Amino acid sequence: MRAYELTGGDQMEQVDRADPVAGAGEVVVRVRAVSLNFRDLMVRKSVRKRIVPTSDGAGEVVAVGPGVTSVAVGDRVAGTFFSHWVSGRPFAEMHRHALGGGCDGMLAELVVLPAHGVVPIPQGWTFEQAATLPCAAVTAWNAMVEGQAVKAGQTVLLLGTGGVSVFGLQLAKMFGARAVITSSSDAKLERMRAMGADVTINYATTPDWDKAVLDATGGRGADLVLEVGGAGTLARSLASTRFGGQVALIGILTGTAGEVNPWPLVGRSMDLRGVYVGSRDMFVELVGAIDANGLDPVIDRTFGFADAQAAFDHLASQAHVGKVVVTVD
Amino acid sequence: MRAYELTGGDQMEQVDRADPVAGAGEVVVRVRAVSLNFRDLMVRKSVRKRIVPTSDGAGEVVAVGPGVTSVAVGDRVAGTFFSHWVSGRPFAEMHRHALGGGCDGMLAELVVLPAHGVVPIPQGWTFEQAATLPCAAVTAWNAMVEGQAVKAGQTVLLLGTGGVSVFGLQLAKMFGARAVITSSSDAKLERMRAMGADVTINYATTPDWDKAVLDATGGRGADLVLEVGGAGTLARSLASTRFGGQVALIGILTGTAGEVNPWPLVGRSMDLRGVYVGSRDMFVELVGAIDANGLDPVIDRTFGFADAQAAFDHLASQAHVGKVVVTVD
Amino acid sequence: MRAYELTGGDQMEQVDRADPVAGAGEVVVRVRAVSLNFRDLMVRKSVRKRIVPTSDGAGEVVAVGPGVTSVAVGDRVAGTFFSHWVSGRPFAEMHRHALGGGCDGMLAELVVLPAHGVVPIPQGWTFEQAATLPCAAVTAWNAMVEGQAVKAGQTVLLLGTGGVSVFGLQLAKMFGARAVITSSSDAKLERMRAMGADVTINYATTPDWDKAVLDATGGRGADLVLEVGGAGTLARSLASTRFGGQVALIGILTGTAGEVNPWPLVGRSMDLRGVYVGSRDMFVELVGAIDANGLDPVIDRTFGFADAQAAFDHLASQAHVGKVVVTVD
Amino acid sequence: MRAYELTGGDQMEQVDRADPVAGAGEVVVRVRAVSLNFRDLMVRKSVRKRIVPTSDGAGEVVAVGPGVTSVAVGDRVAGTFFSHWVSGRPFAEMHRHALGGGCDGMLAELVVLPAHGVVPIPQGWTFEQAATLPCAAVTAWNAMVEGQAVKAGQTVLLLGTGGVSVFGLQLAKMFGARAVITSSSDAKLERMRAMGADVTINYATTPDWDKAVLDATGGRGADLVLEVGGAGTLARSLASTRFGGQVALIGILTGTAGEVNPWPLVGRSMDLRGVYVGSRDMFVELVGAIDANGLDPVIDRTFGFADAQAAFDHLASQAHVGKVVVTVD
Repeated sequence: MRAYELTGGDQMEQVDRADPVAGAGEVVVRVRAVSLNFRDLMVRKSVRKRIVPTSDGAGEVVAVGPGVTSVAVGDRVAGTFFSHWVSGRPFAEMHRHALGGGCDGMLAELVVLPAHGVVPIPQGWTFEQAATLPCAAVTAWNAMVEGQAVKAGQTVLLLGTGGVSVFGLQLAKMFGARAVITSSSDAKLERMRAMGADVTINYATTPDWDKAVLDATGGRGADLVLEVGGAGTLARSLASTRFGGQVALIGILTGTAGEVNPWPLVGRSMDLRGVYVGSRDMFVELVGAIDANGLDPVIDRTFGFADAQAAFDHLASQAHVGKVVVTVD
Repeated sequence: MRAYELTGGDQMEQVDRADPVAGAGEVVVRVRAVSLNFRDLMVRKSVRKRIVPTSDGAGEVVAVGPGVTSVAVGDRVAGTFFSHWVSGRPFAEMHRHALGGGCDGMLAELVVLPAHGVVPIPQGWTFEQAATLPCAAVTAWNAMVEGQAVKAGQTVLLLGTGGVSVFGLQLAKMFGARAVITSSSDAKLERMRAMGADVTINYATTPDWDKAVLDATGGRGADLVLEVGGAGTLARSLASTRFGGQVALIGILTGTAGEVNPWPLVGRSMDLRGVYVGSRDMFVELVGAIDANGLDPVIDRTFGFADAQAAFDHLASQAHVGKVVVTVD
Repeated sequence: MRAYELTGGDQMEQVDRADPVAGAGEVVVRVRAVSLNFRDLMVRKSVRKRIVPTSDGAGEVVAVGPGVTSVAVGDRVAGTFFSHWVSGRPFAEMHRHALGGGCDGMLAELVVLPAHGVVPIPQGWTFEQAATLPCAAVTAWNAMVEGQAVKAGQTVLLLGTGGVSVFGLQLAKMFGARAVITSSSDAKLERMRAMGADVTINYATTPDWDKAVLDATGGRGADLVLEVGGAGTLARSLASTRFGGQVALIGILTGTAGEVNPWPLVGRSMDLRGVYVGSRDMFVELVGAIDANGLDPVIDRTFGFADAQAAFDHLASQAHVGKVVVTVD
Repeated sequence: MRAYELTGGDQMEQVDRADPVAGAGEVVVRVRAVSLNFRDLMVRKSVRKRIVPTSDGAGEVVAVGPGVTSVAVGDRVAGTFFSHWVSGRPFAEMHRHALGGGCDGMLAELVVLPAHGVVPIPQGWTFEQAATLPCAAVTAWNAMVEGQAVKAGQTVLLLGTGGVSVFGLQLAKMFGARAVITSSSDAKLERMRAMGADVTINYATTPDWDKAVLDATGGRGADLVLEVGGAGTLARSLASTRFGGQVALIGILTGTAGEVNPWPLVGRSMDLRGVYVGSRDMFVELVGAIDANGLDPVIDRTFGFADAQAAFDHLASQAHVGKVVVTVD
């Protein structure tokens, strides 16, 4: 079977690998589509072993190993970001089985996963659509449903128009919340308004966007911020948050460097909650929510399998809105 | 000023009372509309002192006492069911100040309330609309947002088409949940479908309605039941609930008598949660959710002040869908 | 290897079975001690297939199957009541793998279990001690730590001196809570006082024991009741609980029949929470708490393997305080 | 009556003021003892209006205003840090009524407070003992009981031997948790061991104290850190915390400046929770826990009213263990 392998220094190459076999408790999935995340770019740059890249993929189950009863051949599934985080609180060891990071990922024709490492995709969805969910949408779900869960009528602040933020906007509206979203592009903001954003802020023309958030909330601040900008935006995110509110710290768009003054957390009794994707249970809940309400994942552009490297580069250019997809044709 | 007083034996009479004065920390509200709840019928029957009936009313603030800074003359407000349950967990003493039960209620031209016992009504709402909220809608909010909060994609079961159930249906849709609702009237069920009900069940023609709920949820059961039927329906409500789910026990439609076998709670690891209206904080959150999403309270019929006794009798007939309102003209 | 099998009608017999083999993800445990629960008596009476009885056992791992990395040969472990409830909320399917109920249990020389179905026992504990934990102690932990978790300074009411209640007493003291416990025997109550009970009530001489609980709590009521008596005691348990408090419904001492008026739950805004043992995560937390604080499990009496039937009968007599143990010698 | 007033520049002076009068809903307390917190030093330095300093005080109620029923003359009470944060989540406006910061504090012979702004002190306690609780002990309670509440068997890390840390140690032991505590003084650490600390670390001789915490927890890290050191210690506190654990950010020992890299929160899925004292409800719970378990507040030294300025200076020297108290004699 064909697969990609990361080779370091932002490079990857297509290789042939032996077809995987389903061991006890495992399933083999024929991958049909993969989506990319910024985390995949960071792994591509820093990786030190040859692994198959990308966490997000969807396809059909083509084999199940001994003892598997919850999944059947023919099931349409997506892989979970962490193959072994099923329920409950996160734990350190789960990172060893983070797809496309701790272990081989999804950019291959066939992958082998534990049976609890796949989830049925939403009804009527294509594989391209389903491939957008495992990292970005589950992250947004975790940030909004766990911790202090978003309630109808609250205000959620989304930063930029990347995958997590756009799913965050869609979930905010699904939950009955207000959505405030920022971008440096008026065209992108126009599109966000069409998707239901209540308030849009151009941070290029309004560099004091935290004040604009306060203005838009009667001086009170957002109840929750999905902070995907890292240390570079965190100070303003904290200033945008209401007394007693929370900031979900997600982002690595700007890397893992940078520092911030944590004092506003104390002075305003706020929570800063580190969010790293989510559990299988959260993914299953997300799919249930999509089945009940519908949701139209925003796919920026789709690349063929042979053009996977170009897809990575497109994501790196940050010109996208929503998700970049690679089909495994 | 004019007011009604309960006289026992399902009777009430209109009286003249001295205009109330706002003491320290208090406000006087000119009541413009009142809505009725089944609880008001029960109080009317069993009351042993002459009190002003009804918990639900809305109007304008016409005076504020010394030290009041959070409310101003001219504010459009509704009273809270419990005048002193502001935040946090319920407490025994709050019942002494339950409007129209522990103390005088809202069916009067003027009422005096603590400043924290009134809440600004939704923007653009009439007093008639706002008067529907304090008991039934806050009860539905408490049942659905506290405890195990309803998540998008979950299923909520509503019993009948009274005030709590109809608000429950509307909130379920606002939260992205599925709503299953029962009635003995196909006409009422048709109306519920128009309001967004995903599944409707006629319990007269489908007496095993718990099985119909299981069928409608792939055999799994509802995540939450708003149980307003009391002991008479509770066994089927428990049978309608998923493993690990919850039943919010609200109802006194059928009185406080009757018994049920509690064992299914253990066998299926479920929660049975007693819900008695809610706190001021919950009411404020509800209004915020209405402001963000809109909500069209279902008013069955509106009576003039002189016909208040007829309004009570209309409610007792159970012919209504939604709320019965009395204007204080 | 030797094992017991239930044969129906309160009978069981010793049989020879082939030694179990560890499949992928499984371990084989040489059982060294087993403890009994009332649930085992109920299964013994009602069982319709020949299964090995009892949920609770501890021993040494003697073999691990392919892919097992978290457990090693020689590990001292106890089995978890539900072999597949690892984390998060309970789920219906877990009952199929409830030891000694849905599937074979622990009263055998060798058992095969999934690797996540065993937990390391507390440091320095004997197998007899560890065998007391899986059902009764995990149940008490779930009842007291999940839901509205018990806080230091709160009051926990325990009914009788069976396994769950005695562990509940010990955990209450570990958590800094007050413990009130009932019994019909002054001798048993004396023993409970020696174990730290703050208040003891003889329900034979004080049939209105709910009033005694109110007296002992300044009229307020217990914050949490571990209700192990079923419908027979539930009405008084509800009357013993504070406004806004909770009752953990556990018990089947008196079977699954009987009814209760649920109305007090509403009138006093209480929760009735069905508790059925707990997850592996809870068991691991319990062991951590024991390692940090020590805990002396109360073993009423220990029987040899050949006398297992007598051990069951002793439990049925209700003469015990704490746990009845069978060694697998 | 006599009182102190802050005059700016770390200075204060004793003045005569008119005796306060209890308005509606208010009480007058004759203060008998006050304790100091680092926050009081910061206010003394930065204050721009003449206010009475200190948040913490206890005494006897000598007058109650109209409408007060929950408090009586003669009650032994302590003031709450925030006079109007009764229940539920924190809110911005509460800071206007933070004693000794937003408004006049407790270093006076007589103070007037809202009736819900005082709490009965633990049974049998002196006023000096009770005066230690409102800020430091309630902060420790909030940090340990709210958010992810500490469970028995978990590990709590305390930094230094100031008021919050010593109460944190005592509460950790009360809750059945392990306590790890740091200091630069072996003598102070010896004293902490005598108070029940499970692990002590001298950060002067072990500058990599985060590694020592990991060693003491089998490489796992603490479940909760009470971070009182500010940005200067936060990086090591984060490194000391387990995957999925939490850090309660409290401290201003080192001021409100300084920055930290927030990335570990994401990489290890941790929560950083800003904690600013707590609500009246938390204080009442704390007193209940003390009544049930006992607790011996550590008073470093007691000064007379005339020596209040010296008491502040003693606190500033950081030579203390536990609380510095001023009696109002």
